[in-house]
Amino acid sequence: MGKNLTKRSEDYSKWYNELVVKADLAENSAVRGCMVIKPYGYAIWEKMQAELDRKFKETGHQNAYFPLFVPKSLFEAEEKNAEGFAKECAVVTHYRLKTDPEDAGKLIVDPNAKLEEELIVRPTSEAIIWNTYKGWIQSYRDLPLLINQWANVVRWEMRTRLFLRTAEFLWQEGHTAHATRQEAIDETEQMNNIYADFAENFMAIPVIRGRKTESERFAGAVDTYCIEALMQDGKALQAGTSHFLGQNFAKAFDVKFTTKEGKQEHVWATSWGVSTRLMGALIMTHSDDNGLVLPPNLAPIQVVIVPIYKGEEQLSQISEVANEMVKALRAKGVSVKYDDRDTYRPGAKFAQYELQGVPVRIAIGPKDLEKGTVELARRDTLSKEFVSQNEIEQKVPSVLEDIQRNLHQRATTYRDEHITEVNSYEEFKEVLEVKGGFLSAHWDGSIETEQKIKEETKATIRCIPFDAVQESGICFYSGKPSNQRVLFAKAY
Amino acid sequence: MGKNLTKRSEDYSKWYNELVVKADLAENSAVRGCMVIKPYGYAIWEKMQAELDRKFKETGHQNAYFPLFVPKSLFEAEEKNAEGFAKECAVVTHYRLKTDPEDAGKLIVDPNAKLEEELIVRPTSEAIIWNTYKGWIQSYRDLPLLINQWANVVRWEMRTRLFLRTAEFLWQEGHTAHATRQEAIDETEQMNNIYADFAENFMAIPVIRGRKTESERFAGAVDTYCIEALMQDGKALQAGTSHFLGQNFAKAFDVKFTTKEGKQEHVWATSWGVSTRLMGALIMTHSDDNGLVLPPNLAPIQVVIVPIYKGEEQLSQISEVANEMVKALRAKGVSVKYDDRDTYRPGAKFAQYELQGVPVRIAIGPKDLEKGTVELARRDTLSKEFVSQNEIEQKVPSVLEDIQRNLHQRATTYRDEHITEVNSYEEFKEVLEVKGGFLSAHWDGSIETEQKIKEETKATIRCIPFDAVQESGICFYSGKPSNQRVLFAKAY
Repeated sequence: MGKNLTKRSEDYSKWYNELVVKADLAENSAVRGCMVIKPYGYAIWEKMQAELDRKFKETGHQNAYFPLFVPKSLFEAEEKNAEGFAKECAVVTHYRLKTDPEDAGKLIVDPNAKLEEELIVRPTSEAIIWNTYKGWIQSYRDLPLLINQWANVVRWEMRTRLFLRTAEFLWQEGHTAHATRQEAIDETEQMNNIYADFAENFMAIPVIRGRKTESERFAGAVDTYCIEALMQDGKALQAGTSHFLGQNFAKAFDVKFTTKEGKQEHVWATSWGVSTRLMGALIMTHSDDNGLVLPPNLAPIQVVIVPIYKGEEQLSQISEVANEMVKALRAKGVSVKYDDRDTYRPGAKFAQYELQGVPVRIAIGPKDLEKGTVELARRDTLSKEFVSQNEIEQKVPSVLEDIQRNLHQRATTYRDEHITEVNSYEEFKEVLEVKGGFLSAHWDGSIETEQKIKEETKATIRCIPFDAVQESGICFYSGKPSNQRVLFAKAY
Repeated sequence: MGKNLTKRSEDYSKWYNELVVKADLAENSAVRGCMVIKPYGYAIWEKMQAELDRKFKETGHQNAYFPLFVPKSLFEAEEKNAEGFAKECAVVTHYRLKTDPEDAGKLIVDPNAKLEEELIVRPTSEAIIWNTYKGWIQSYRDLPLLINQWANVVRWEMRTRLFLRTAEFLWQEGHTAHATRQEAIDETEQMNNIYADFAENFMAIPVIRGRKTESERFAGAVDTYCIEALMQDGKALQAGTSHFLGQNFAKAFDVKFTTKEGKQEHVWATSWGVSTRLMGALIMTHSDDNGLVLPPNLAPIQVVIVPIYKGEEQLSQISEVANEMVKALRAKGVSVKYDDRDTYRPGAKFAQYELQGVPVRIAIGPKDLEKGTVELARRDTLSKEFVSQNEIEQKVPSVLEDIQRNLHQRATTYRDEHITEVNSYEEFKEVLEVKGGFLSAHWDGSIETEQKIKEETKATIRCIPFDAVQESGICFYSGKPSNQRVLFAKAY
């Protein structure tokens, strides 16, 4: 253990990569671009899953499970979607290995076990799901159909980074069917709001809600809503998307329903998802040069208690106090670990829990036994104070709440300080270079301009914010008229 | 809706297939051998997951996630394991599609995107996990390593059946590493006991614990423990397995640790798993000719309330009573649904909930309003009684407990009646043919005998029960000596 982390100011990207590995969140595997999510990282993901799943169910969604594989002919059915994912998909062509006739210790693909039709490992499941919905939807009584899936998906990305972009990742994908256009649009909006609420209030990550431009839309969508977060290096990160799919998939897979009035109509669709990418957002929003910083809502261990002792007798006295605290805090719903391992010294434990972002650390030494105190350290502010043992039960829950609030506040302040209104291309380039963050600017609405700006600066339009003020202005790039500002940024 | 189920006595297999589809549990997909788990089926699986996950964590295990793909060279590393799964694995050979030059609307595999090394879609994860453990285990302080994964796996089975045998299925796989042989054996046993406890007390399925014979062992295991259940058609079903892997994988992947004394030793391993196959066991243990029968512990809806009314006014009076009941029962932790849909008649609703195995149905009609009663129907016994509205809050929880107990009791009685001691080959064949179930018989311990019996009768040794009495006897097939009975059966 031990820190030895590269500083963010030295090399942000290196800091991130080191932190993910050293804090035991994830690591690269033997499979190119695929990660192993380690127990500590997975425990955080499980907390995200549980909260999202609760929110989905609360709004009437049910979970289901659809096949990992998509036959090529189905994959092709919705043209834009197919086009969007064809270049990066893993293809299963055979279903058997056999012993290599030239080397009995080796296996080779059995040429006699070639599939008649290739199978695509799902990069997203619209195709297989809409092909299934065809059999599930006949009447208005079958609508709305509100389904979510927790699954792994594969996109054969060439440049990968742990959590942020991996060939295989974990996610949830909601796929809903509705009788009317408006109902589908309302669902798209509802789910984007659920993501925003989750990010802000559970992950302590401030996000901006908006819609994507045409060129940044999901392949096959009519409209893509999103939440955009800002990382500490001034780059934006798309944290979740919710798509209004119109009738594109219903038409591609011929999914019609009989209305109350007896007419046949194509249904309206949405899909929406967040992924293990949120782990990247979490890490890059809150953490510091000492390691991970976790909001208490997501911390697998909220409080760790470390004994500082010489000899068995001291340990047993400290343990008595510690175990009482563990009991009292657990009764209040706090997750506490008492780390009395004798295989590590207190200093090594302190370093480990700091690196792993445990929100509150309580140390109990011989002097504390005398004085009836403990030392309480906060991970977010790195501050320490002595607290009476009697007060711990009351104090800790309020400190945890305060940490959750403080992290959100801190990130919001940073984000707000990094939204800059710019009105000329010079200004745009300078702010992008020097300060980063979101650039709020007028844009003429054309794909051409958007494309040129991207080529020249690497900045993209992250979203057209829902709360943007309608104001007339001129595009900083083309000089053409515009009626609202959009947000540009370099992005993950 | 409506029953129209084939009777079990007519065609058990057809009854099963129909039930799975009609009760909305699962269906076949467009991908050969892969199923879609529908929301109602998935809700049951989620309840299994939650309870198992709780048991795993309670015994110190943590969840993690490992890649879907296994590079061929890793797959080969443990020879027996590779041999066991090579004949049924999905192989990814390419990572991109491109537009068909002869038909712009079609996609074909891009021959320029061939992988240097083929990837196997995991049929089980020992290989990829043990390759990872190599980096995680250095010292005795890193042990035991107690990890579980919830995942999808793929085995290219030729004959598939919903839940029982599908090309893709969902499961959990535990993979643990230990410093000593004994500790690994204890873990193997502990996990088999957890499975047995789960089956008996949560799923209400009686199981027999035992070990597999050499020829029925998991590929790569030194010893395989299992739990075996008996279905209503007299066939056995392996419901869970726990493997002692010895040092096979540690040696294949060179995973060593430094002992307290500073020596280098290979670690000892276990793996254990249960899958969506348990859904098949659940269905075939309890259900009847009217449809699914669910133990209350696993029922997504434990109680359904159906109003019987004419006109809005009656409905509103009934709803008032029903909503009070819903509130009172939910406060007691009972999951209740009040089905006041006006798009279906009461008869259709009754048929649906009977088919879907909802344990308790409460009907409220105009006469019940007058008398202050409701009609309470039990799914397990198909019995009905009138209960005072005031008593519902007390009555329902105890009825649910009684149903859970009754189902276990009923299945145990059936199972016990279908364990037959046989002492000659004639007897063996006759009981197998006429009665089915488990045949408790002396076996000479040889693979040859086991193999011949299988060829001649299709019966296999399901397990060597842990509680078998040591008694000297002679093998019913070969006449050679034996010192305990083993259990034969035809199996799923």
